[in-house]
Amino acid sequence: MNHMNHLTDSDSLEQLRRQLARFADERDWQKFHSPKNLSMALIAEAAELVEHFQWLSEAQSHSLDEEKHAQVRLELADILIYLIRTADQLEIDLISAANDKIVINEERYPVEKVRGKAGRAEDFR
Amino acid sequence: MNHMNHLTDSDSLEQLRRQLARFADERDWQKFHSPKNLSMALIAEAAELVEHFQWLSEAQSHSLDEEKHAQVRLELADILIYLIRTADQLEIDLISAANDKIVINEERYPVEKVRGKAGRAEDFR
Amino acid sequence: MNHMNHLTDSDSLEQLRRQLARFADERDWQKFHSPKNLSMALIAEAAELVEHFQWLSEAQSHSLDEEKHAQVRLELADILIYLIRTADQLEIDLISAANDKIVINEERYPVEKVRGKAGRAEDFR
Amino acid sequence: MNHMNHLTDSDSLEQLRRQLARFADERDWQKFHSPKNLSMALIAEAAELVEHFQWLSEAQSHSLDEEKHAQVRLELADILIYLIRTADQLEIDLISAANDKIVINEERYPVEKVRGKAGRAEDFR
Repeated sequence: MNHMNHLTDSDSLEQLRRQLARFADERDWQKFHSPKNLSMALIAEAAELVEHFQWLSEAQSHSLDEEKHAQVRLELADILIYLIRTADQLEIDLISAANDKIVINEERYPVEKVRGKAGRAEDFR
Repeated sequence: MNHMNHLTDSDSLEQLRRQLARFADERDWQKFHSPKNLSMALIAEAAELVEHFQWLSEAQSHSLDEEKHAQVRLELADILIYLIRTADQLEIDLISAANDKIVINEERYPVEKVRGKAGRAEDFR
Repeated sequence: MNHMNHLTDSDSLEQLRRQLARFADERDWQKFHSPKNLSMALIAEAAELVEHFQWLSEAQSHSLDEEKHAQVRLELADILIYLIRTADQLEIDLISAANDKIVINEERYPVEKVRGKAGRAEDFR
Repeated sequence: MNHMNHLTDSDSLEQLRRQLARFADERDWQKFHSPKNLSMALIAEAAELVEHFQWLSEAQSHSLDEEKHAQVRLELADILIYLIRTADQLEIDLISAANDKIVINEERYPVEKVRGKAGRAEDFR
């Protein structure tokens, strides 16, 4: 079933979704992949990203050396992989969800209110 | 600059990347969006996902009621949004990174060794 | 300065606080130990705990084998260490904070309303 | 059973442990408090701490205003509460675990090798 139904089959994210489902199927890992467990795996990967940056300044985090950049790149991949798996188990279309969230954020953070400030409109009244 | 250069401009992820960069630009938020800070925002969103599942059984996490499903859907959106922003700041192509990681995982978890077990090949020798 | 001032000097947590401050001082690590950075280190350690449990059932997480139990024990230690360091940098007395939070929780989760249910009183009206 | 057995009954951490166990008992929450679930609750609280700091500079994170300081104080309390609950379910003595970890860290990060640098001895050879 393709529940990311606004996507063409050639879309990059939809391709990944199918590959990752097959990867889990082949290993009989669907039984481990409850949304609960996947959320744990996802946050564990997010923490590995955080770990790369924890003792760096913000400026340093912008200009990683080649080795660290390569490691961070694969951490981002891990996060995406578990994110896609979680969405797949819950039949959620990530792209349409993100589009909906952007609409919500446009309202929550109107340019004229939050420009240059980190926070919501209501924090700056 | 389009550093997700193997993607056509019509790809869903590339479209999101451009929208989110514009969103941050319009609000003068690039200055907050160091990879370090974005990794913190990303894990905070991942934790909101975890929070939805922490007192549920694995079975319950598979069959969320409509309201909870809608909330979880937007948490996944938030994670994707910060993931794309982080990748963009570091000029990382998420799709190619995920594809590379899948190749690594195919080697690390050979079907015949890990089938039905959670772990790496070397854990089952 | 002993800002955990309701504690006697012999209290176990106060002893740890002083040891850990000395550990950081000796290594000239105070400069890395901003509350921001320490919060990142803390969540990275919390994620290592999560990682131990992500593919286990709840029942399995109760009865770890000896090796895993020893590993989990040291993860808990790491979390406590960064928690104490964060509190120390912000001059927060962890014990009095926890006591205050317990009072808040007693009100938020009255026995007669939440008994046997995971959630707040207002979720069960 | 008092498995934090090197502690006197008057120790602050041991007192908290007993209070929190009673809190969970009274609400019939032991059934939710598997180590797996508690690790999720713990990381969710750690993320609330991270969230307070994500858009602050390191310097700002050192000098919080009164309101934010009070909020952060209660986040630290939440982390300690779930840390104690997890340790209790696994019959782990947090203080002795932390002491053991400090000994390990003394070896892993010898002063003469790591002074002023964030990392392990082997990173600086």
